Amino acid sequence: MFSKLTFLILIISLIFSTSLISADNIPVGDITILFSPKDECGKAILDKINTAKKSVEVAIYSFTSRVLSRALITAVKRGVTVRVFLDREGTEEPYSKANFLMKNGVLVKLAKGEGLMHNKFCLIDDELVITGSYNWTTSADLINDENIIIINSKEVAKVYRMQFERYWQGTYLDKAYYIDKNTLQKLK
Amino acid sequence: MFSKLTFLILIISLIFSTSLISADNIPVGDITILFSPKDECGKAILDKINTAKKSVEVAIYSFTSRVLSRALITAVKRGVTVRVFLDREGTEEPYSKANFLMKNGVLVKLAKGEGLMHNKFCLIDDELVITGSYNWTTSADLINDENIIIINSKEVAKVYRMQFERYWQGTYLDKAYYIDKNTLQKLK
Repeated sequence: MFSKLTFLILIISLIFSTSLISADNIPVGDITILFSPKDECGKAILDKINTAKKSVEVAIYSFTSRVLSRALITAVKRGVTVRVFLDREGTEEPYSKANFLMKNGVLVKLAKGEGLMHNKFCLIDDELVITGSYNWTTSADLINDENIIIINSKEVAKVYRMQFERYWQGTYLDKAYYIDKNTLQKLK
Repeated sequence: MFSKLTFLILIISLIFSTSLISADNIPVGDITILFSPKDECGKAILDKINTAKKSVEVAIYSFTSRVLSRALITAVKRGVTVRVFLDREGTEEPYSKANFLMKNGVLVKLAKGEGLMHNKFCLIDDELVITGSYNWTTSADLINDENIIIINSKEVAKVYRMQFERYWQGTYLDKAYYIDKNTLQKLK
């Protein structure tokens, strides 16, 4: 009797949780929030890269961290596909790791277009998303006020993966226009 | 019998969901992810500000959006407490809305310290968090590549609220140091 009841509860719980899913509203399993400089944002990102088994995708404005670039290269050496999408302006920074990554097996592409590629997100094994205000720099880790949010959810990962593919294939929208400046409604 | 069973299922579901909560791992209800310029990030933020009933807290590096600043002022007029924590450098920008907000009832404080106040988050009614790479500017909405994540969760909101209070009270850590540069481990 108990096991039948447990089974029933499990089934109903699953139905209940699935019913929350819609195009925009994605229930997620768990979230970790970290703030710089008080929390170890850089260490958390490093630890997650070090667990990658299959793929890492990074879309980031500024990438100057030696430790994180080495972690990506180590991931490539153990068979992980690593792709990094960077802003052009960000790579003009003298400490940019763009060339170092490219020379060491990391696939790198630079954003084209008018505005900045201002994202700061990372996707690991299509399961984990790290996003927030945090560029991969020492300043972001030690002196700036920043936040990252680490989300363990295949559903959330899927949304970021789709956008990353748009960046990688060059099929992303470069510029939008308002149809109404007062409501910030865009022309479709 | 059915209502007793339903009640039992509800109680067990609640226990089950609570068991996932830990200091770092917060289960959340729902998430919306938007990318600029393709999605209406600015409109989504505007719509959320317009629903605020009690409080809005914003910690943002660059705030030049006329529409969003007006929405905050309108919120103040309907009795909402609005606090905005800005970066000093960001307010030197000619289009910064710092003065306009202050003159119209929005509580504004500027970050002190060595690094940038580089966050871009907003908290509404202690229930909803908007965070990501998106500064409140027209460039972020129309030409940059950005992402925002909107999380409807009191647990997540609580974490951001605590950090916002540290900013507001001036009790936040200004600078951190590494104990080990190779693991990005910080001195505690």
